[in-house]
Amino acid sequence: MTTEDDPTGTLARRSLLGALGVVTVGGLTAGVLGLTGRAATPLSQRAAAISPSAAASHDAGHVATATATPSPTAHADHDAQAEAQVKAFPAKTAGAGLQELKSNVVNGVREFDLTCDQFKWEVTPGTFVDAFGYNGQVPGPIMRMTEGERIRVRVKNNLDQTTGTHWHGQRVTNNMDGVPFLTQPTIKPGETFTYEFTANPFGSHMYHSHHNATEQVGKGMLGPLLIAAKDASVDPKYDKDELVILNDQLGGITVNGKGFPATAPYTAKLGQRVRFRFMNEGQMTHPMHLHGLTLEVFARDGYPLPAPFKCDTLNVAPGERWDAIVVADAPGAWAFHCHILGHAEASTGMFGMVTALIVS
Amino acid sequence: MTTEDDPTGTLARRSLLGALGVVTVGGLTAGVLGLTGRAATPLSQRAAAISPSAAASHDAGHVATATATPSPTAHADHDAQAEAQVKAFPAKTAGAGLQELKSNVVNGVREFDLTCDQFKWEVTPGTFVDAFGYNGQVPGPIMRMTEGERIRVRVKNNLDQTTGTHWHGQRVTNNMDGVPFLTQPTIKPGETFTYEFTANPFGSHMYHSHHNATEQVGKGMLGPLLIAAKDASVDPKYDKDELVILNDQLGGITVNGKGFPATAPYTAKLGQRVRFRFMNEGQMTHPMHLHGLTLEVFARDGYPLPAPFKCDTLNVAPGERWDAIVVADAPGAWAFHCHILGHAEASTGMFGMVTALIVS
Amino acid sequence: MTTEDDPTGTLARRSLLGALGVVTVGGLTAGVLGLTGRAATPLSQRAAAISPSAAASHDAGHVATATATPSPTAHADHDAQAEAQVKAFPAKTAGAGLQELKSNVVNGVREFDLTCDQFKWEVTPGTFVDAFGYNGQVPGPIMRMTEGERIRVRVKNNLDQTTGTHWHGQRVTNNMDGVPFLTQPTIKPGETFTYEFTANPFGSHMYHSHHNATEQVGKGMLGPLLIAAKDASVDPKYDKDELVILNDQLGGITVNGKGFPATAPYTAKLGQRVRFRFMNEGQMTHPMHLHGLTLEVFARDGYPLPAPFKCDTLNVAPGERWDAIVVADAPGAWAFHCHILGHAEASTGMFGMVTALIVS
Repeated sequence: MTTEDDPTGTLARRSLLGALGVVTVGGLTAGVLGLTGRAATPLSQRAAAISPSAAASHDAGHVATATATPSPTAHADHDAQAEAQVKAFPAKTAGAGLQELKSNVVNGVREFDLTCDQFKWEVTPGTFVDAFGYNGQVPGPIMRMTEGERIRVRVKNNLDQTTGTHWHGQRVTNNMDGVPFLTQPTIKPGETFTYEFTANPFGSHMYHSHHNATEQVGKGMLGPLLIAAKDASVDPKYDKDELVILNDQLGGITVNGKGFPATAPYTAKLGQRVRFRFMNEGQMTHPMHLHGLTLEVFARDGYPLPAPFKCDTLNVAPGERWDAIVVADAPGAWAFHCHILGHAEASTGMFGMVTALIVS
Repeated sequence: MTTEDDPTGTLARRSLLGALGVVTVGGLTAGVLGLTGRAATPLSQRAAAISPSAAASHDAGHVATATATPSPTAHADHDAQAEAQVKAFPAKTAGAGLQELKSNVVNGVREFDLTCDQFKWEVTPGTFVDAFGYNGQVPGPIMRMTEGERIRVRVKNNLDQTTGTHWHGQRVTNNMDGVPFLTQPTIKPGETFTYEFTANPFGSHMYHSHHNATEQVGKGMLGPLLIAAKDASVDPKYDKDELVILNDQLGGITVNGKGFPATAPYTAKLGQRVRFRFMNEGQMTHPMHLHGLTLEVFARDGYPLPAPFKCDTLNVAPGERWDAIVVADAPGAWAFHCHILGHAEASTGMFGMVTALIVS
Repeated sequence: MTTEDDPTGTLARRSLLGALGVVTVGGLTAGVLGLTGRAATPLSQRAAAISPSAAASHDAGHVATATATPSPTAHADHDAQAEAQVKAFPAKTAGAGLQELKSNVVNGVREFDLTCDQFKWEVTPGTFVDAFGYNGQVPGPIMRMTEGERIRVRVKNNLDQTTGTHWHGQRVTNNMDGVPFLTQPTIKPGETFTYEFTANPFGSHMYHSHHNATEQVGKGMLGPLLIAAKDASVDPKYDKDELVILNDQLGGITVNGKGFPATAPYTAKLGQRVRFRFMNEGQMTHPMHLHGLTLEVFARDGYPLPAPFKCDTLNVAPGERWDAIVVADAPGAWAFHCHILGHAEASTGMFGMVTALIVS
């Protein structure tokens, strides 16, 4: 999720697929050797090149001859739809959130510019919703800074309604906390409000609207605030840094602003250590389940856990952040989804809060 | 919940009642001495033999003479229904889940057979639902194995729709992960798919459908996968091993496939250490509250917790497993229920996710 | 929440405002020096005395000249309503829960009297609901005792329906556990039932109805049971002791029996250590988020955590209790609310599970 300057997501898909090296379909995990980082063949097309019958040669995983075939048509439609959903993954949609936000240091202060915008957002192919968001993205761009840095953020309101921005998890001075009428006036349409604070504490935090927030956050006014610790040794080592931002309101059930099959798969090379930063900006608790690998959870709301723990299902409540390391020590396309099954699969196949970690 | 070969549940009820030794009713905890393990008298009949007025002789727990009696009829119906529910507990229903599944070791591989079936399931007395399940049971049978063992499971699909089986929490190879179209073809009606994996990691895991899963798991296609650690010293010591499998979909709000009063009480002798394995196969988070005793939680998703903790209310999210020890150091019938009160009690009395731990 | 003998809440509001010393509004945190503990000026009036334009003199927090003003009327109504809600905080309502319950030690037994009552309860200004509650309060009065003390509680039922009282988290003998028909007869209208138990374990516990409980607890039959440890060194040090009791049923979304803006703000002097005892008596899980400060969580269901952790969002499930220390080391009015945004803010402004911690 570190794709920069690629609003259509084309680059993201291309690099993700390039990183694959493993395509899994039809009962078979096929090591697709020799594919380069430039490979742009969609997963669905590559899948078609592998005969499902190849699976029959496996010791396990074989399909025995049917000894009875009850109502063979009853399930055909479901399967066709379900297969099409998976083969479409990762599906192309316009717009990509979580682009890196540029900043400049001016007289010792790191400065960022955010705009509050209204736009159409394509959540799944062909489904456009009326979004509110920062800098035209859902989720908003990634803001990166270092613990102790002085930060200035100019927030320009291009909405047709007032707003205010809260730095969720940050220990700002009260007048920078972003709660209209309690700590500041609203930011009116056309106005710019300048927030200043010292980045503290470090870790995985969020920024989002704190005004008419059920609507504004629900529609996408949210983004990640990633604060590197001054002492880097507080974090475990990792090779990749990924975001898992959950929402469940006006855009439906989404991961990083998209619903399956338009969610972007995560990728890792065998043996890499991936840091996942889970953030829930929705209204429902989402127990995120990763198949085949282990989550080593080491921070909660940015604070290092005194007793890090392992799990495969991490319950993320609204407003919470959790950081985990996954050691990508097993190849394959590992499903990664909310285990509230109604957020992940309908009779027409998988949708919503579903993605995969593809280890090649 | 280790009842084997007893589809009607008669044996389970009989042995549970035999283990009682304590019947609690009418404000009185009565030590019923001399009852043998064969005693098959229902709790309701035994309760009737104890005069409620006996409670009056207690120092505490007495009912003082009413000094005012507002609307004495307003609550009569509720009480009659509520009392009937408790007196019916444990109520007889057809079918018992969680029977031990037989396995055979063939050339070093432990082999199991599962069938995917459609059948009527009696959730509470007289209430039959259209279930999907493994081996005709809800939850499916208990699969026991040891960490590091090679496992082969033949899954025969007798449903009128396709399916796939996921080994939730297990680190299988990707082509054995059970996600149709992503890692294997669907198992069509009449077909058998053979899964192979090495049992790892140890602990409390689950198997369930991962295809049309909202419907299939909701209807009962789920069961426990219990993997003993090679090094038994990783577990705390315990005398009994019990399952608490939660579901909240087509069969209503259930524990181990049944709703109160058809839930089976857990039993323990005074001083015994009982291991409870909580598993949530539903779509809602269920905070399970045990009265009068303490849960000592030592594992999460099978992984030993670095800092085991105590509680009396354990919030179990969909897909999560938690293991706890309860030291049965206080006699009585201890209510054990979801603390979302709407999952446990209506104006017509207790129902759904309610059972008891009876310490004798 | 230690207000005693003040059913109208007047005293609570007065002392809270007196403790302020900081009024925050209009983008400005103003140290209001010289205000005494007697100051009774409502927050809304004091806010009006500070010109919003004063904010413009700040380095940050200034409002730049609008360069565009799209649909200036679209947001006017929302803002007027939202501002009125905040300015009304803390709004006056009749009735205050959580008054200290008097007890007497008689022959070595600490005795309390509870009554179960039906009454109108003002949740927000002008909104009265049909409540059930203990001693005419929602939540019921605070019961304080010491670990190991023998306790006697006379529960008089003035309702027009039967009831029973459960000591949630306490290890009482089974016949004192308060589950009608399982451990005692119901307490009929007009009757008094006397409970006796030895206070154990220490920590933050609850009492509530365990009969027709969805209705009775939903309507307010709940209260805190606070048990001091014999060995006071098990607790971290703290200067203030506060309750955060959550409910979400018949009275709507409430903290300590009131909805915003009628919730009482918490107050602390700069540097004070405040113990918050979170208790969920509702049917939904509530992730409580405190702005600008850190929650140091040290106990769960009364049991000291072996590995206390820090966070800013604490997910509290029904039936759970969590204890945390907040060091009030930053001045201001810190919003404190459920992060399920639909429990905290509507298009008409903040409501429900919203309060503030005001550090002066």
